[in-house]
Amino acid sequence: MRTPIAQVTPASGSAEIAGWVHEVRDLGGLAFMLIRDRTGIIQVTIPKKKVSEQVLAAVKAVSRESVVRVSGPVKAIDKAPGGRELVPESIEIISLAETPLPLDVSEKVPAELDTRLDARFLDVRRPRVAAVFEIRSAACYAINQFLHDAGFTAITTPKIVAAATEGGTELFPIAYFDKEAFLNQSPQLYKQMMMAAGCEKVYEIGPIFRAEEHATTKHLNEATSIDIEVSFADHLEVMRILENLIIHTYGYVEKTCSAQIANIGVEDFAVPKAGFPRLPYAEAIEIAKKGIEEPIKYGDDISPAAERAIGAEMGGHYFIVDWPSEIRPYYAMQYENDPSICKAFDMMHPRMELSSGAQREHRYDRLVQQIKQKGLNPESFEFYLKPFRYGIPPHAGWGLGADRLVMTMLGLSNVREAVLFPRDMHRLVP
Amino acid sequence: MRTPIAQVTPASGSAEIAGWVHEVRDLGGLAFMLIRDRTGIIQVTIPKKKVSEQVLAAVKAVSRESVVRVSGPVKAIDKAPGGRELVPESIEIISLAETPLPLDVSEKVPAELDTRLDARFLDVRRPRVAAVFEIRSAACYAINQFLHDAGFTAITTPKIVAAATEGGTELFPIAYFDKEAFLNQSPQLYKQMMMAAGCEKVYEIGPIFRAEEHATTKHLNEATSIDIEVSFADHLEVMRILENLIIHTYGYVEKTCSAQIANIGVEDFAVPKAGFPRLPYAEAIEIAKKGIEEPIKYGDDISPAAERAIGAEMGGHYFIVDWPSEIRPYYAMQYENDPSICKAFDMMHPRMELSSGAQREHRYDRLVQQIKQKGLNPESFEFYLKPFRYGIPPHAGWGLGADRLVMTMLGLSNVREAVLFPRDMHRLVP
Repeated sequence: MRTPIAQVTPASGSAEIAGWVHEVRDLGGLAFMLIRDRTGIIQVTIPKKKVSEQVLAAVKAVSRESVVRVSGPVKAIDKAPGGRELVPESIEIISLAETPLPLDVSEKVPAELDTRLDARFLDVRRPRVAAVFEIRSAACYAINQFLHDAGFTAITTPKIVAAATEGGTELFPIAYFDKEAFLNQSPQLYKQMMMAAGCEKVYEIGPIFRAEEHATTKHLNEATSIDIEVSFADHLEVMRILENLIIHTYGYVEKTCSAQIANIGVEDFAVPKAGFPRLPYAEAIEIAKKGIEEPIKYGDDISPAAERAIGAEMGGHYFIVDWPSEIRPYYAMQYENDPSICKAFDMMHPRMELSSGAQREHRYDRLVQQIKQKGLNPESFEFYLKPFRYGIPPHAGWGLGADRLVMTMLGLSNVREAVLFPRDMHRLVP
Repeated sequence: MRTPIAQVTPASGSAEIAGWVHEVRDLGGLAFMLIRDRTGIIQVTIPKKKVSEQVLAAVKAVSRESVVRVSGPVKAIDKAPGGRELVPESIEIISLAETPLPLDVSEKVPAELDTRLDARFLDVRRPRVAAVFEIRSAACYAINQFLHDAGFTAITTPKIVAAATEGGTELFPIAYFDKEAFLNQSPQLYKQMMMAAGCEKVYEIGPIFRAEEHATTKHLNEATSIDIEVSFADHLEVMRILENLIIHTYGYVEKTCSAQIANIGVEDFAVPKAGFPRLPYAEAIEIAKKGIEEPIKYGDDISPAAERAIGAEMGGHYFIVDWPSEIRPYYAMQYENDPSICKAFDMMHPRMELSSGAQREHRYDRLVQQIKQKGLNPESFEFYLKPFRYGIPPHAGWGLGADRLVMTMLGLSNVREAVLFPRDMHRLVP
């Protein structure tokens, strides 16, 4: 019976372990192997004169990163990892690794991100890389837990769709039998339909697809989005939910993944404090004007440089609110007293945008008018507009980028570090 | 402040509610409205001589399924739902529904499935339809919980891929910038790569896409799959995990969704008993031979009719094991003493297959040989095969259809009843 390496102690007497050969050192009369599994590393000490022929042959044949099964007595020893060593009675080579390895797993040799992504199966063997994906898993669990406990219904919306969410051209076309179809760029329209369906509070964690020709450290063509929509709620209410979700998720990760945080070397991990500041867009632009060299004015999108300048000023997570209606999607609700701005918001990490949301326009006539104002044809949105004619409550929601959440939480330099098999203009394999 | 309808009691004195107009009845001097939200229904009683002009005008203008906000004193009354009624001081029509409705929400008029799916936003307002999706949400949560607590890491694998999982032609092609790409038909190859990556226990809940030209009650072209893969495990171990997961999920639904189960009218809801029988494929064929008219022999796929005949004999959930290697994918591990059968299994509900799995072939040379035996070209699978040359543990796993799980759990006649916006050869909207 195989024991997880972290659980092997001298008290266990004899143990059987299985894992990857992290290192082999041959000192003549004595050889050492470090064996690694998901839980840790153990030293296997081989006094050549005292072990069997089978063990000697295995030690000679094995290569780094091969998978082996080893059994034998465990002894306390000060200098070894975990304060114990295993003296093998048997070593079975389960899967022999070819040499040379396409990537050095021991982290002694730094590798380019592209090389690492090409050999992701080796890259993730590094404890600090595995730690990122363990934290990502924990964060997703925390999000499910938070939304479930808050009374949300998890929904699954289609990824193959007939129309674009925002009428944009940045869609991947699919040959769907004899029909034209696309990969969905957002569950936006579907989660709004669920408001018309009376579901009141829904969420989805799933893939979104954008055919944008980006080549940045924070955009991918396939991403994971966390989306919520809430009936009888305004933008302020869903901002509160978002803030609490972020705090809960950081808290859960801090509580359950301290070893992984240490492994990655995140020095300044801190659960954000409640009360994210709410910065009106107009003020954000003023801060940006002072902080960046390139020209920026009211009505412009907030450029990456502007995001960083404003982020530096704000210090932690914050909201940008009261956006010009002109630069937000047609479905954002405009303020009654000033339709030039709308009830939309972005939730920002000092480094970049994490989430976009708004109270939505639920009044059919105004929605049609806003679609037209954006130069889009309401007829293309009939499947979406129809529910607005048969009783739909006021509602609000947001989408939160899961990959960026992990990236900013752990201070990763590239969103690709937070995604197992990233997809961009140049990368489709593995 | 809006109160959920189920929480409104005479003790609350006055209440404000918001929801959909389920019914309006005008009896001359007296009118009644039933207002419905996600939590329940309340009667609003309008003694015409005692209410304001504003209320009278609203009652006159409102139509069924409009969204309204109503406030006023609550009184105990025997005959009304929940034993209370609200006498309105104000009624605000938030969203007026057009008449006639494309679908009758009160469930008095039965509707065809196609009509219901066309107007899904109205269909899901029916409490018995909403109940299906609330149970689906609960089941997904239970699955996340079970796998998280069992030490699994949640992973996200790409849906846009360059190669087919099983070399089949049943793939949707995508125009991916200047490259040829496809929608992934299964996370199979990626979760196996995660075994080479040292993750040991992984799971994913996500969409899968199959361009099969089916027109049945249990196939969709976009489905939700629950996938696990476990290192150092054989097929028997992952069968135990699957059985326990099913029992946990039914148990969670029974515990948390009794009202929904009653609403749907599931009469025979029962948590499956541990110890799902394990029926060798050869014996399953013998049972089918006796139970169906069409000819069937060893080596054939198990047809829907055969599934039903065997299911009737077995009575509850069961496994079919020891499949002929010839009719299973190349990645199933063959038995050492009889390579004509393999360590693959299907987990069956009496009505249909729910899950397929196997111990996988982890030995590179044998895997290449099995790929060739299926008439496939190993070179097309280089991205998948590469990890097998650099140390991969033995591993096993399965995929479980989430839609079918919900369908069979609730006795739904069509898998489309378990999916909000199903995708098939003929349906791409809404």
